[in-house]
Amino acid sequence: MNIDDYVVEKAKRASTAARILSNMGTEDKNRALFSMAKQVKKNKDDILEANKLDLENAKKSGKNNAFIDRLSLDEKRINSMAEGLEKVASLPDPIGEGVKMWKRPNDLRIEKVRVPLGTIGIIYEARPNVTVDASALCLKSGNSVILRGGKEAINSNSAIYNIINRAAVDAGFPEGSMEFIDITERKAVEIMMKLNRYIDVLIPRGGKGLINSVAENSTVPVIKTGAGNCHVYVDADADLDMAEKIVVNAKTQRPAVCNAMETLLVHKDAAEKFLPHLGDTLRRLNVEIRGCRRTQKLIPNIKLATEEDYEEEFLDLILAVKVVDSVDEAIDHIYKYGTKHSEAIITNNYTSSQKFLREVDAAAVYVNASTRFTDGGEFGFGAEIGISTQKLHARGPMGLNELTTTKYMVYGKGQIRK
Amino acid sequence: MNIDDYVVEKAKRASTAARILSNMGTEDKNRALFSMAKQVKKNKDDILEANKLDLENAKKSGKNNAFIDRLSLDEKRINSMAEGLEKVASLPDPIGEGVKMWKRPNDLRIEKVRVPLGTIGIIYEARPNVTVDASALCLKSGNSVILRGGKEAINSNSAIYNIINRAAVDAGFPEGSMEFIDITERKAVEIMMKLNRYIDVLIPRGGKGLINSVAENSTVPVIKTGAGNCHVYVDADADLDMAEKIVVNAKTQRPAVCNAMETLLVHKDAAEKFLPHLGDTLRRLNVEIRGCRRTQKLIPNIKLATEEDYEEEFLDLILAVKVVDSVDEAIDHIYKYGTKHSEAIITNNYTSSQKFLREVDAAAVYVNASTRFTDGGEFGFGAEIGISTQKLHARGPMGLNELTTTKYMVYGKGQIRK
Repeated sequence: MNIDDYVVEKAKRASTAARILSNMGTEDKNRALFSMAKQVKKNKDDILEANKLDLENAKKSGKNNAFIDRLSLDEKRINSMAEGLEKVASLPDPIGEGVKMWKRPNDLRIEKVRVPLGTIGIIYEARPNVTVDASALCLKSGNSVILRGGKEAINSNSAIYNIINRAAVDAGFPEGSMEFIDITERKAVEIMMKLNRYIDVLIPRGGKGLINSVAENSTVPVIKTGAGNCHVYVDADADLDMAEKIVVNAKTQRPAVCNAMETLLVHKDAAEKFLPHLGDTLRRLNVEIRGCRRTQKLIPNIKLATEEDYEEEFLDLILAVKVVDSVDEAIDHIYKYGTKHSEAIITNNYTSSQKFLREVDAAAVYVNASTRFTDGGEFGFGAEIGISTQKLHARGPMGLNELTTTKYMVYGKGQIRK
Repeated sequence: MNIDDYVVEKAKRASTAARILSNMGTEDKNRALFSMAKQVKKNKDDILEANKLDLENAKKSGKNNAFIDRLSLDEKRINSMAEGLEKVASLPDPIGEGVKMWKRPNDLRIEKVRVPLGTIGIIYEARPNVTVDASALCLKSGNSVILRGGKEAINSNSAIYNIINRAAVDAGFPEGSMEFIDITERKAVEIMMKLNRYIDVLIPRGGKGLINSVAENSTVPVIKTGAGNCHVYVDADADLDMAEKIVVNAKTQRPAVCNAMETLLVHKDAAEKFLPHLGDTLRRLNVEIRGCRRTQKLIPNIKLATEEDYEEEFLDLILAVKVVDSVDEAIDHIYKYGTKHSEAIITNNYTSSQKFLREVDAAAVYVNASTRFTDGGEFGFGAEIGISTQKLHARGPMGLNELTTTKYMVYGKGQIRK
């Protein structure tokens, strides 16, 4: 079978399963999810073994630390995948929820009801946990899922898929609810991007390159996730101890993820007190600082930040720093370089905080907290399928609700339009 | 200036205006919208004169009745455009609405707040009222708008745009809030479809050809609107008087619009009683019927319905009719041929009605009412920018809320992620 037929066949199966899934009972879905979790834990040695192969290949081909971190599985991460399945099983089923109900003057009763999207294609790169997290969220929300992971994680993903798919079907999900494209050639993705007939939405998860290429070439609707060039702005009136703690957290707690800070903006009136001490702290934590000319005067021996540094999502222990004259200049900088992901202001000034919240155009805007909280789990959604940086459909962390659409159910008694 | 520069320049202006518009006060927006309404009424003769030119050209080039209907303006339709502006001004401002608020165990307070999408491109065909309706909804919801109407309505659209844009700017909307592309060459649309940097969403309004071409070629996110191959299914247990009234209404009250019925499905147990009388009624109303073999036996002298007839959105006084064996067969037919717009069942059977509501995958599903109600006005949204037939972002009639997105505003007191 050629690649075209192979991918179309899988998509067709997923689409057929979606019609059954959309009316599957909540208890049945939950039971199957728990059973999937059990099998993940039970077979963790198989997963670790497969992951070892992927890690060896990645090291051989000289992948960087951020990449290796995303690819790595250990017992803790596997347990947390299983717990993710259980957590999703325990969450309320969004399907069938009445979002809104009202009656019209002609007595038509209109209900806006949550229903599944249909079939969701997930195109991802190095993180094998996506195989589990994405499937759990899609299935719980009544959608079938087509998984297409990166070739660097193919052994881990195949092992995980085989385990959870077998468990899913054994426990009552229709065949085709989860499909896995084990072809690593790019052509498989190209075919998926044109299958509007069978796939309702594509969600690419990974680096900027992947996301932009899918968004630009897909005729299937896409939800863009992830790319995060996030800023923390330390205002003139900031509590500088708090500011340092937040900056350190946002930069170093897990630098390889999209909600980590990439550029620090500091008001000129806070810079002199704030930056020298912060510079020492960040150096101890092995963070490379690249600063503007004013920053260079306050933190010695650092590189000059370039235009490219302000644009870059480092995903590593590198930080660009710029001193600004006002909250307006900070907001303008974020407009110019930001990716509309997560932006924070550290301030005790009411007016500045309100201005920042209102005028910064991003999925999540923070006052006095770390950007690292932009996350489905941290927001209380139980799990997430990614963080949308687009404005259509869903913005910010996407949990179960974001994997649904609605339909209007209209109850009449013979009304006709006049 | 070449076409590229011309379109990019307008998009840039709209995008700059959007940043101002997003924080514009509700009262300021309303005042400007009322002033736009006043100017439409005041200058209606100019609009009618321009429309006359378009109508003459359309008749010369042999356009059909449905087309002429969509293009035609008269005093009543102009008044209703002005009333639309006033109605939108009177609607609650969606911007700033708190959609949801909650607190996390770590005391982070999260607010999900409604904000504008940014800049919206409207690509439309023969209906000049779209120029007003779309602008009103975009401006009220804090978005700037780029209008690109069909060449057949260029005189009407230009006249309307000049009137409302002047009124808008005079009354306080920033310059660039409304831009109008008066280039009728297709290239202008091709440029718009690639302007992701300045345009946040494109909404094509018109026939299938336009909509599919924009959806397939645009890198800017698209909301598909309109194409409606709608069905009415008359169940075995239907009240046949009610059924006839609804069928007549759904087919003939305004056949040229997307929520008109195109195919009638009739349960075999109702067909014999229902179809002969309906056939007489529809004939008197000049509806051409194309039926399956079983229909042909009950309504004499009609053409056999082809596969193409079931697929066709006639937008005219033509109706395809099929007799089916069960509600399941009706649902399968709708799955196969429907465009997920509006579907109705006429029945007094509880089980059939629930099955139809649950299993039919469409923006609006009706029991015992005409499909013609799928409309922003009829749903109580005040006005509409189109009817979305896609599943992402918005589904069904799109009013003000559907032209917004959300952002998360997060209030902290120094929280960092552990």
